[in-house]
Amino acid sequence: MNDMIITGDYLITMDMKNRIIRNGALYIEQGIIKDLGTKKDIIANYDAQVVIDEPHKIVAPGFIQAHTHSVQTIFRGLADDLSLLDWLKKRILPLEAAIDKETSYYSSMLGFIEMIRTGTTSCLDMLTVNFANEGISAARDIGIRTRIGKMLMDMGGDGVPETLIEDTDDALEDSIKLLEKWHNYDHGRIKYVFNPRFALSCTEKLFKNVRSLTNEYNDLFIHTHASENLEEVATVRKLTHKSNIEYLHSLGITGKDVTLAHGIWVEEHEYQILKETQTNVCHCPSSNSKLGSGVCDVLKYLNLNIPIALGADGAPCNNNLSMFQEMKTAAFLQKATRKDPKALKAPNILNMVWKNGARALGMQHSIGSLEKGKKADIVVLDYNHIFTTPFFDPISAIVYSMQPSNVYAVIIDGKLVFKENKFLTIDETVILKKANKLAQKLKEKVLGF
Amino acid sequence: MNDMIITGDYLITMDMKNRIIRNGALYIEQGIIKDLGTKKDIIANYDAQVVIDEPHKIVAPGFIQAHTHSVQTIFRGLADDLSLLDWLKKRILPLEAAIDKETSYYSSMLGFIEMIRTGTTSCLDMLTVNFANEGISAARDIGIRTRIGKMLMDMGGDGVPETLIEDTDDALEDSIKLLEKWHNYDHGRIKYVFNPRFALSCTEKLFKNVRSLTNEYNDLFIHTHASENLEEVATVRKLTHKSNIEYLHSLGITGKDVTLAHGIWVEEHEYQILKETQTNVCHCPSSNSKLGSGVCDVLKYLNLNIPIALGADGAPCNNNLSMFQEMKTAAFLQKATRKDPKALKAPNILNMVWKNGARALGMQHSIGSLEKGKKADIVVLDYNHIFTTPFFDPISAIVYSMQPSNVYAVIIDGKLVFKENKFLTIDETVILKKANKLAQKLKEKVLGF
Repeated sequence: MNDMIITGDYLITMDMKNRIIRNGALYIEQGIIKDLGTKKDIIANYDAQVVIDEPHKIVAPGFIQAHTHSVQTIFRGLADDLSLLDWLKKRILPLEAAIDKETSYYSSMLGFIEMIRTGTTSCLDMLTVNFANEGISAARDIGIRTRIGKMLMDMGGDGVPETLIEDTDDALEDSIKLLEKWHNYDHGRIKYVFNPRFALSCTEKLFKNVRSLTNEYNDLFIHTHASENLEEVATVRKLTHKSNIEYLHSLGITGKDVTLAHGIWVEEHEYQILKETQTNVCHCPSSNSKLGSGVCDVLKYLNLNIPIALGADGAPCNNNLSMFQEMKTAAFLQKATRKDPKALKAPNILNMVWKNGARALGMQHSIGSLEKGKKADIVVLDYNHIFTTPFFDPISAIVYSMQPSNVYAVIIDGKLVFKENKFLTIDETVILKKANKLAQKLKEKVLGF
Repeated sequence: MNDMIITGDYLITMDMKNRIIRNGALYIEQGIIKDLGTKKDIIANYDAQVVIDEPHKIVAPGFIQAHTHSVQTIFRGLADDLSLLDWLKKRILPLEAAIDKETSYYSSMLGFIEMIRTGTTSCLDMLTVNFANEGISAARDIGIRTRIGKMLMDMGGDGVPETLIEDTDDALEDSIKLLEKWHNYDHGRIKYVFNPRFALSCTEKLFKNVRSLTNEYNDLFIHTHASENLEEVATVRKLTHKSNIEYLHSLGITGKDVTLAHGIWVEEHEYQILKETQTNVCHCPSSNSKLGSGVCDVLKYLNLNIPIALGADGAPCNNNLSMFQEMKTAAFLQKATRKDPKALKAPNILNMVWKNGARALGMQHSIGSLEKGKKADIVVLDYNHIFTTPFFDPISAIVYSMQPSNVYAVIIDGKLVFKENKFLTIDETVILKKANKLAQKLKEKVLGF
């Protein structure tokens, strides 16, 4: 890990004053931002290799996704235009159940490749029940920052494959093994998270144990799905006589160390619970749209000061993992359904991505802005591109105009991971070829065609 | 214009039987598809240069956009997150009014560059009132197929710059000059269209004259905006005592040779008018979202068998001109607002793009499918890419997974215009640099900052 200097026409700091430094530069030492300022000053003051010094570049904090399923990437294109029940029971669950060690590794690797290529440096990731070790190994190898863990399911219901349902104690034991192996791996680049799937696939015992284990260890987190669709919240009410978030709250699954994905069908008193407990919520606009889940009331969360972040969810419900798409779709959905072009402006979107994203991963003290002492997780964007010509405002360009090809370089934990269309940590061509073969095999095995 | 053979793993024909030919090829002579079939047969039967013969390619009809404003591309990023009134009166109209000859050329050129880079081979384009000749010249130079014309406005209202409002006869005279110069230029690659802006900027006399001129000349078309937002339809009702489309219908602005952009706020009897007259409608999902116009009832149009196509509208209300985004956003909006993941499936979307797109340009006999005798307007898509890995179904991949970088080559009128990230007809780098300079000048002049 070498010291380095990165320069850019615009340095978007996202610091307390929201400064954008023109002709700026960062000095990075041992993966940490040690100083930042004008290019002239930084180059005069520090004796380090200038790694990036090209015209037409925006240097910004790497994008943070607060809800992803990297391990589902290999199902991309296998579950389109289906009813939610068919999507889950005929596709996602049987496919997840059939994942083996090798597929787990390559599928998560595909997901991380796509995220990094589109500017994401960190994600809160939910693997599947089995072979989580291999998904985490993919994160280790490619160099992404992630809070990641195995999925927890100890009850099922109609149509859930048996290999996905574990005994409560086995599930927790496996989790503890994984967290003891991986939590804070590589100086904290990888952190562990408990991922109970959702209210209907976990017992009360499991949720309660997840809460007490989270309290027991240092810097752990809980990540689950909540109130994504109407049938889900109706079933939870029938079974528990509580509304969904109220039920989770009663089991300790709310708080600053919890991130709930979706939060679409939320009752008034539940918004109050989320506000009081400062629970993180992750909005997944593409997934909510493609699955017909509904439209999350993002402005309500912002108005109530409930921290709401953004995420792409999984490839089979999106079908991409690009924050450019999530940012634009988030803005579009609020503006279209409210008939208000001023709803959810570009700066609000970037606050969700960077500030609330960092919180939703429990990493607000180390990522989400370019400031002295923070981790060097950086996306370098090239605006000398048809999609951003003409070029005026970097904030508007990032949210409304950029495409994946605007990503010039990605630095994670002070390490140059991707630059000029090439990964420096992995061989993308070999991985794509291998992943495609595994996907064809998986499809034949599970879907029989 | 040379004879050529193009091969691909998948040939999406969009013919009557919706055939997808595996390991297929096209033989093209003088810009026309002369034959198609398996690669083996085509290569054995024809003695022509094999221009594209690489693995992992999908060969499909070029995308068709049925509503664009190429000349607004230079306003990209200058009109974000504003109320509709501010968007129009503080930005779009003054900027349009300030366009000079050179800006008109470079702005439209930017638009065509972005469209072609993202797979579009044809568009129905509305320029501005002045310097339309330069916008059409850009289409001539880059090689796009377009039905294009000057914008017609002969009345204004509060806040409309005077230079945009013409005397009715002058507007028509200028149109006739342009159409006599450009209509059917380059063996029909460029065709003319009358572009009255919308009900509130045109007199009855103008609309009536447009209708009679359209009847007088061969193969002309009418293209206007209709029922895009609630205030517009309310004002039209107040002024004309008719609903908007009813009013246009009374002036002859409906029919198979008419394309109406947007069609969001449409009354029941107006849907019937559109159905009976088989008027084309163009859905612009990104624009409708970003401007907070509302959500078009696409399924209603499809159920009523009213031909509805897709378009990106202009850069200041989008901010891109990519059909990948429009296809995905169209599907997302219907699924999200109906809470139905089966609403507007991938094949429906591609029907809108290709079949209805060709109709909306009055070109259904020459483009929109790969068939013997049709024009060689082709997009070659590379699916060996992270965004389309794994790869299963080409239709689903195009609609839900592809990004602009999946476009490998674009052929228009039998001419290779774009291949492997490079234009063969223009110098993109020079144009981007020049356009950026013009844009900065325009911004300072009009907006004063």
